[in-house]
Amino acid sequence: MQSAFVIPLWADLTAVGLGGVQGALFASGFRGQRRLDLLGVVVIGTLIGMGGGLIRDLLLGVAPATLQSDWYLITAVLSSLAGMLLAPLLQRLSGVIVGLDAVVIGLFGAFGTSKALVLGLPAVPAVFVGVVAAVGGSVLRDVIMGLPVAVMHVGSLYAVAAASGSAALALLAAVGVPLPLAATLGVAVTAVVRLLAVVFDVSLPEQRNLHRRRVAAETGVIPVMPRSERGRTAGRG
Amino acid sequence: MQSAFVIPLWADLTAVGLGGVQGALFASGFRGQRRLDLLGVVVIGTLIGMGGGLIRDLLLGVAPATLQSDWYLITAVLSSLAGMLLAPLLQRLSGVIVGLDAVVIGLFGAFGTSKALVLGLPAVPAVFVGVVAAVGGSVLRDVIMGLPVAVMHVGSLYAVAAASGSAALALLAAVGVPLPLAATLGVAVTAVVRLLAVVFDVSLPEQRNLHRRRVAAETGVIPVMPRSERGRTAGRG
Amino acid sequence: MQSAFVIPLWADLTAVGLGGVQGALFASGFRGQRRLDLLGVVVIGTLIGMGGGLIRDLLLGVAPATLQSDWYLITAVLSSLAGMLLAPLLQRLSGVIVGLDAVVIGLFGAFGTSKALVLGLPAVPAVFVGVVAAVGGSVLRDVIMGLPVAVMHVGSLYAVAAASGSAALALLAAVGVPLPLAATLGVAVTAVVRLLAVVFDVSLPEQRNLHRRRVAAETGVIPVMPRSERGRTAGRG
Repeated sequence: MQSAFVIPLWADLTAVGLGGVQGALFASGFRGQRRLDLLGVVVIGTLIGMGGGLIRDLLLGVAPATLQSDWYLITAVLSSLAGMLLAPLLQRLSGVIVGLDAVVIGLFGAFGTSKALVLGLPAVPAVFVGVVAAVGGSVLRDVIMGLPVAVMHVGSLYAVAAASGSAALALLAAVGVPLPLAATLGVAVTAVVRLLAVVFDVSLPEQRNLHRRRVAAETGVIPVMPRSERGRTAGRG
Repeated sequence: MQSAFVIPLWADLTAVGLGGVQGALFASGFRGQRRLDLLGVVVIGTLIGMGGGLIRDLLLGVAPATLQSDWYLITAVLSSLAGMLLAPLLQRLSGVIVGLDAVVIGLFGAFGTSKALVLGLPAVPAVFVGVVAAVGGSVLRDVIMGLPVAVMHVGSLYAVAAASGSAALALLAAVGVPLPLAATLGVAVTAVVRLLAVVFDVSLPEQRNLHRRRVAAETGVIPVMPRSERGRTAGRG
Repeated sequence: MQSAFVIPLWADLTAVGLGGVQGALFASGFRGQRRLDLLGVVVIGTLIGMGGGLIRDLLLGVAPATLQSDWYLITAVLSSLAGMLLAPLLQRLSGVIVGLDAVVIGLFGAFGTSKALVLGLPAVPAVFVGVVAAVGGSVLRDVIMGLPVAVMHVGSLYAVAAASGSAALALLAAVGVPLPLAATLGVAVTAVVRLLAVVFDVSLPEQRNLHRRRVAAETGVIPVMPRSERGRTAGRG
């Protein structure tokens, strides 16, 4: 059953490697109380690199493919280290991080949906597996770092992007488009939707609140408390 | 092995649908900083609707039944939308939410324990699977929403209710009562224990603390800080 | 496949029991807002006792061994109760808790890596499974209790200790040392590395911050907020 699946190893390792770089870049950005040491950065990078595939295979009820070969972990750890070393450089180029993020979400989503279809799941749960694989790593990251879970607020648009690409893939596969081509188009749809959301700054009121809290976390300053602030201002008056 | 299991699809979908409504009602109640947009509410509803079954099947080491058919996700998403639309109406009828919650816990607990017994697990781990399936969705919800995990405080009584029903089911099954009847009685025991706890307001000191923190989260006001309060009061004097 | 695995039941139950005691001791130490009731302490003890084995088997894609017999849960619950009753005594002997912790990490790490090797995983993912099994329970505990995840800060040294022992085990197995002997040496390496880190107080700046936050959590005092403190100090001037 497992062997019927035909994601080429190089494609799978590309997703893991880009995920590792992206995770390490993210984790390197924290300052103050949440600042991570070298090992913490590598843990987060590895989590993002490996997380999508692990969650996908847990949902599918198969032994995790990412643990059947030495290459996945080696790729995840090395790319995390590379991401950490390149962080001072890449963090200035915000386009790089956003683009990387969009491609990583697209890859994990497309691989999740493809593998689900190959294993015989119907279209709806196959899209679900793709979405959860795409955003699951970032949920684990936020929970482990004690951050508000981005996907619940700002990140509902992540989920929409992942769902668009996964649904496109499932539709194309249903009308007979070969899976490798459908998957490639799925990655493109997710990445484009995600990038358009960033370019046109699609943001809801909740997102600004969340952004404030995340900035607070990154700078080590505990989130501003409206009530106590009001109390204090009143006291001054 | 999987096919030996005989929870009727309509019963399974009922649990998913009620879970979706209950999750969406819960998620709709938040205000301020934790307020969720439409997608966030649907994510939480789907999580509660699907969570119990997914956790159960992960613990049992079988492919998740909720992903083998399109109906589960369709039911979870539609019932979440229904729960969100009905929220303004249903949130006034607090009995509805509490009753719904009690039945949902009972169903997930009974299905978890039943499936574990059918797959040949001994009674003690079968009860464990039921309890974790019953409360697991709410743990995921609290973690993802950044709330204190209810089941650790106020919610130890959830776990007790789920354990009572699951243990009753396992006992009845052990003495030869047919599983559908034993499961029905298990649901009833859990729901009754849960409702009695609410009616007689069984609450521990810790629960009042937690309640304060949850109310704070719902209203968007950051939890009151005893120490800084004391400091400020002292300053005023 | 499962039956090929030869961790003796007594060894497995020893790990579960020590984990239960250690988890309950930890959970008993909380005061104030995070204070747990009896059931909460048992839940945390059971989580630490069972968590390592459950996570290991999820990663390996096999049905959890800890749910195939009544003994695991009975051991976990009874040892949690014992840990809670002995807490007033053992918490004075800090050496006991630290030593227990080191041995528990070692056991879960060694069993995780051993089982992975027996199931045919390559060395690198086998070590990964050992490390995640060793530290996974404590991650779940911290997330469920709403604490900063220790392993990301202070605890990177936990991961290093677990990785040392698991890597030693994998190396010894690769050169033909019988698995029971290799596993025993693996446990010893992890425990010694962990104890040396404590004895020589290997600590990074981040760890002191985290320690402050954990102490705050244990005493029920909400973490000190630099900014509001500064504000208040300024107000006094």
